[in-house]
Amino acid sequence: MNRVSIISIGDELLIGQTINTNAAYIGEKLTAIGFEVVRNFTVGDLKEDILKVLKDAENISDFIFITGGLGPTHDDITRTCILEYFNSELIFDEETFERIKKLFERRNIPMPEINREQAFVPKIAQVIPNNYGTAPGYDISKDGKRFFVMPGVPHEMKGMMENTILPQLKNYIHSKGIFYNQKILYTTGIPESALYSKLQDLRPLFDEVKVAFLPSQFGVKIRLSMRSNREELNLEKIKFVEDKIRERVDEFIYTDEEISIEEVIGRILKEKKLKLAVAESCTGGLICNRITNISGSSEYFERGVVSYSNESKIQLLGVNPETIKNFGAVSEQTAIEMARGVRIISGADIGISTTGIMGPTGATETKPIGLVFIGYSDNQTEFARQFNFADNRVRNKERTSQAALELLWRMLKKL
Amino acid sequence: MNRVSIISIGDELLIGQTINTNAAYIGEKLTAIGFEVVRNFTVGDLKEDILKVLKDAENISDFIFITGGLGPTHDDITRTCILEYFNSELIFDEETFERIKKLFERRNIPMPEINREQAFVPKIAQVIPNNYGTAPGYDISKDGKRFFVMPGVPHEMKGMMENTILPQLKNYIHSKGIFYNQKILYTTGIPESALYSKLQDLRPLFDEVKVAFLPSQFGVKIRLSMRSNREELNLEKIKFVEDKIRERVDEFIYTDEEISIEEVIGRILKEKKLKLAVAESCTGGLICNRITNISGSSEYFERGVVSYSNESKIQLLGVNPETIKNFGAVSEQTAIEMARGVRIISGADIGISTTGIMGPTGATETKPIGLVFIGYSDNQTEFARQFNFADNRVRNKERTSQAALELLWRMLKKL
Repeated sequence: MNRVSIISIGDELLIGQTINTNAAYIGEKLTAIGFEVVRNFTVGDLKEDILKVLKDAENISDFIFITGGLGPTHDDITRTCILEYFNSELIFDEETFERIKKLFERRNIPMPEINREQAFVPKIAQVIPNNYGTAPGYDISKDGKRFFVMPGVPHEMKGMMENTILPQLKNYIHSKGIFYNQKILYTTGIPESALYSKLQDLRPLFDEVKVAFLPSQFGVKIRLSMRSNREELNLEKIKFVEDKIRERVDEFIYTDEEISIEEVIGRILKEKKLKLAVAESCTGGLICNRITNISGSSEYFERGVVSYSNESKIQLLGVNPETIKNFGAVSEQTAIEMARGVRIISGADIGISTTGIMGPTGATETKPIGLVFIGYSDNQTEFARQFNFADNRVRNKERTSQAALELLWRMLKKL
Repeated sequence: MNRVSIISIGDELLIGQTINTNAAYIGEKLTAIGFEVVRNFTVGDLKEDILKVLKDAENISDFIFITGGLGPTHDDITRTCILEYFNSELIFDEETFERIKKLFERRNIPMPEINREQAFVPKIAQVIPNNYGTAPGYDISKDGKRFFVMPGVPHEMKGMMENTILPQLKNYIHSKGIFYNQKILYTTGIPESALYSKLQDLRPLFDEVKVAFLPSQFGVKIRLSMRSNREELNLEKIKFVEDKIRERVDEFIYTDEEISIEEVIGRILKEKKLKLAVAESCTGGLICNRITNISGSSEYFERGVVSYSNESKIQLLGVNPETIKNFGAVSEQTAIEMARGVRIISGADIGISTTGIMGPTGATETKPIGLVFIGYSDNQTEFARQFNFADNRVRNKERTSQAALELLWRMLKKL
């Protein structure tokens, strides 16, 4: 009744030239109103393959969303496939023709003949108007199944979804008494397996409320979701499971909003009116880059120093040359002096630092690839913590930046 | 014989929480060695659905690539499905166990029991080692079909593809007398349409040798490819078309290897024994981050300064306070003084700088969002160039970093 398949058409998707963001967008929007997406298919610009996938999708779902292959050129064959699949014929749609004509008039370009052709639509279809391009969409109902056919250009597809399709389907699904709700808890600093172990006794609760663990290098997301015929019931049960989870692992959850840890940190810094300065050696600018991805970061981010050379550590951060000589640039002592130095010299309230060996070269007898020290300094306390990441260079940088931001977040909560 | 299906497993893909980049990566890599990707399937964490898709994929292809659902938690059911699909059983794989154990030892974390479980693998499978995570991959041959099962975590999957699977499949496809060759020319600083216009007279050559234009924020790739039963023929014809293209647009091509512009720059700096220092305001560390992603960058990258505040521009870069007062922090003059300052204070040979308004806030009457100045300084010449990018914040940072690296690359070629 509410099962969905999404079909994406185009050779460029199969050969990996274009990443399929359309299917993710459609899946997200439909899930959020209570539909159940059961399958995505991607298929090339080949008639037999498209017809086969249409059949496969129809067999397993009630709603079929199709994108791509509606353009005016010879490799766009979706309309032809639709005609054959539904045994329909083309009719000229006056309204579509007027819309396309106006589009070219607005752009001050004469309308090419191939675009006029796009005003011919399958007789079986209701036209979905396209506010951002020439190709019309089709809305086709047959034998209790419903097919939406849209262009592959993301913003044209999104326009049709938002303006025409989603409002209709939201009414439809609520009229069927289906309500879906979800909540996501964002954790950091704990691997998926450890998180799972800590929550293992809750497993009996994970049937009614679905709980999924989604790991990435930025932490593990815990997704709680429930579908029923009563929204309040969903919210209540999800809250119950959330509370149980928080009892066990709350210290690792940095937000339940769809924001990054750097945004969480930014909010705390703003709220507490604190300024941050960063001294990066091994992360090479990544921490600064993440912090400055947040709009408004200039309010709390004073400066960063990417002190790759020893000279720059001494000159810009005031690290004692003796410290580097005695303990090495990759050491607890240097990390502390870097964090302290960038804080004091900049006049910021908090300084953090990274120094480590990211690989693949640079390891020594006593200092392996992945050895990292993260330093922290405020006017009350300073310390450095040791980590061992043994990954490739870019991943080591990512993991170090994540560990540094996590450490900063934990310290900020206490300030 | 060389038809491929890719199956991506995971609810997070269907509900659009994660964009499916794995299928694009696998499709691209396999296409590049001569395989034909005919279908992608995405399916949720449901046994019946996974079994159905395995069957569907097997029916239409010779090679089936499966990613996702190999983690240690209860919603990871791919291993179970594989056992059932192939009617196989689990056996304990000592080598995998040792590998997982070492992974935890290196990280100094005790190994949870659920990770030990991952050393049990389907008897029918050959293990594909995972250099970056716990889950082993499986390589299964049956009835003339071959299945590769890999984790969904992108870098773990990529490690298996690059280290184990692709080298094998390359040999396989050549043994079948299929030779596919391609050459990619990486351009920067010219839009797709301008590039296309400059090459329009070559169109008759683009039949035998396929030529595709692939735009991204890092420039337009020109892909030349040809498939035949003779490698020398492919290489010869591709070379012929490449030469014609280079006659027209060589100045925009920064490499024909699969390396980034920051790596090209690194090679030139190393070769010419030059040191670089970077002063970033609006890019916030992104340029330093890109430069330090390259292994060995400590040889030529002296330091970076992320001078977000005016004070840091004055204190660390020696920018004249009057310059900021008279022209503003976002100005040609400030950009030049930043580049000059970071070069002279660091003792590097070349300094580059960025200052601009990345949005969504910070615009003024005369300085709109996207206004950027990129500064350059060596001991012979210094200047700043103005750009106007009007995109979102993160995209503006990316475009600015790309423009700065392009400018640096052009200057380095002349030194």
